[in-house]
Amino acid sequence: MLKPGDTIGILGGGQLARMMALAAAPLGLKCHIFAPAGDNPAFDVAAQRTEAPYEDEAALAAFAASVAVVTYEFENVPARTAEILSALVPVLPNPQALETTQDRLIEKRFIRAQGLIVPDFEPVDTLEGLYHAVERIGRPSVLKTRRFGYDGKGQAMIRPDTDLAEAWDQIGRTPAILEAFVPFEREVSVVAARSLTGDVVAYDVAENRHAHHILAETILPANITPRLEVEAKDAARRIGAALSYVGVFAVEFFVAGSGEGEQLLVNEIAPRVHNSGHWTLGGAETSQFEQHIRAIAGWPLGSPRRLGRIDMRNLIGSDADQWASLVAEPGLHVHLYGKSESRPGRKMGHITRVTI
Amino acid sequence: MLKPGDTIGILGGGQLARMMALAAAPLGLKCHIFAPAGDNPAFDVAAQRTEAPYEDEAALAAFAASVAVVTYEFENVPARTAEILSALVPVLPNPQALETTQDRLIEKRFIRAQGLIVPDFEPVDTLEGLYHAVERIGRPSVLKTRRFGYDGKGQAMIRPDTDLAEAWDQIGRTPAILEAFVPFEREVSVVAARSLTGDVVAYDVAENRHAHHILAETILPANITPRLEVEAKDAARRIGAALSYVGVFAVEFFVAGSGEGEQLLVNEIAPRVHNSGHWTLGGAETSQFEQHIRAIAGWPLGSPRRLGRIDMRNLIGSDADQWASLVAEPGLHVHLYGKSESRPGRKMGHITRVTI
Repeated sequence: MLKPGDTIGILGGGQLARMMALAAAPLGLKCHIFAPAGDNPAFDVAAQRTEAPYEDEAALAAFAASVAVVTYEFENVPARTAEILSALVPVLPNPQALETTQDRLIEKRFIRAQGLIVPDFEPVDTLEGLYHAVERIGRPSVLKTRRFGYDGKGQAMIRPDTDLAEAWDQIGRTPAILEAFVPFEREVSVVAARSLTGDVVAYDVAENRHAHHILAETILPANITPRLEVEAKDAARRIGAALSYVGVFAVEFFVAGSGEGEQLLVNEIAPRVHNSGHWTLGGAETSQFEQHIRAIAGWPLGSPRRLGRIDMRNLIGSDADQWASLVAEPGLHVHLYGKSESRPGRKMGHITRVTI
Repeated sequence: MLKPGDTIGILGGGQLARMMALAAAPLGLKCHIFAPAGDNPAFDVAAQRTEAPYEDEAALAAFAASVAVVTYEFENVPARTAEILSALVPVLPNPQALETTQDRLIEKRFIRAQGLIVPDFEPVDTLEGLYHAVERIGRPSVLKTRRFGYDGKGQAMIRPDTDLAEAWDQIGRTPAILEAFVPFEREVSVVAARSLTGDVVAYDVAENRHAHHILAETILPANITPRLEVEAKDAARRIGAALSYVGVFAVEFFVAGSGEGEQLLVNEIAPRVHNSGHWTLGGAETSQFEQHIRAIAGWPLGSPRRLGRIDMRNLIGSDADQWASLVAEPGLHVHLYGKSESRPGRKMGHITRVTI
């Protein structure tokens, strides 16, 4: 159990690490950010910073020696990095959660093993395998690399007229899965936290709208039935327990069908604080960032109570140029990430409106 | 007007600077903390840090060159420091506000000039002057140094049996004022912000309870009549305008009398974010720290709307040892300042309960 004055190590220097560090400070905890050279806005709010590649073993050892626990802001932490650190200091969430969620095939099999529904899928290792998979799954379907995909990267849509060899080239001919396309009504997610003692708190289900594969807007309450609200939170609880997870994670779902036939399919698990939980800053009694820090510090979790109706929008690329009019809007929570350069598709900040 | 990415310089490395820096980050603004060697918990959450005496002119020049505006967390900024910085970079609130509030005599005359009531007072420059002042003001009364007093330091109570020579020795035989003792019913304060364009927003009146001259508890709403609530906010508005003030400040009042005879007397002005405004973190739509950053950045002010009934308590000295049970209390906002050493009388953190 950490005590005030202790230092938390965070792998990654982006906005998620930054918001974690901002949440750690009021709890009296310091942060040490470890990130490769680049635009690392989390450096600006942390007590200690190490700029080094994730492969720099000497830097990792010095980092581990300076902190009481290590956590991370992204799921693609190299396995070797996690292994080196784990030998020296507790790493939470545990690296097994990373192994499970870094690989879409392992992840989907794990989710099924929990009795939850995922879109039908087939592993694909070769172009020939892709032909077979399309035969079984049908079109439209989605070809996704097993590893390192996010925000739509590493994906190819298989439409009625898609040339399979081209799709296979497009994703880089790497191990993949073919996933049935779900004609979903909406996308929702549950952000939950699990403590060192196994307590789980889940925030209310969020409804998410994406644009160009990037989260654009999150609203709460989600437009789903009370039955599905319960099922989604329960799925998160089962997943958290099965992973012996400690910290905040998100489960993304597709909602298919409607009325009595409404059904949840698990899309993916994110083993970290999640964009669809950013509304909790100002919109919930305890933010997901504070919740994550509490969990990995071995502290009791806070209340996930929602303070009102929520509308959270991401500021992507040039959206953030509107900052002057946004900060002038009464009651709007504006959160800018301090990134030095705005690029198309880059998450620059978010805004949340809480209506009571 | 500052824009996201710009850097704010803050003089002082304590909890007020720390909470300002934590509020600046979500607005995309960086902070550079300047403070003398010592326990500077604000260093842990700032992009840049300079550890140097306030008299180090080279360090001040380098600091000024690195920031877009300078502000401060404490009223006793040396006049020479403010002068050096003002020549190089905007200093907000303006140093004239410091000059007015650093000296109790100048401050009281200024407040009276605004048509506001202060406890009766007499300047005291010698022991003989103290005898004369006591003759006019009477006992009980309070002898206070003109400069550098806070949290009860530099004060001596003149009771019926107090030896005046001893009291004069006690405060260090420095220029002082003798103030009539006000048999007050309660102490209240208004925290307000004034923008670069002269807009003022005032938070609701807070009722404060002190222990050993240190703020122990702030509750809202204050137990005063609606008439006094209006008068207190109006006093803050007048004071802010007369000082051409930019930023957050607090006005402390005594409430004397009761019912129709209830009356406000101004005790003092604090030209900075104020302990009696800490409840705004989690208890108001915009915290006093964000409000201060908005003001000195030249941005519009946020809504001061209070989110519920407030009970804020300071964690003084060993109070903070109870952190483990405090962070386990549902719905309690815990804020620890990250100080490395707990001493009796030292402010280590605060807790706020917001009841809706």
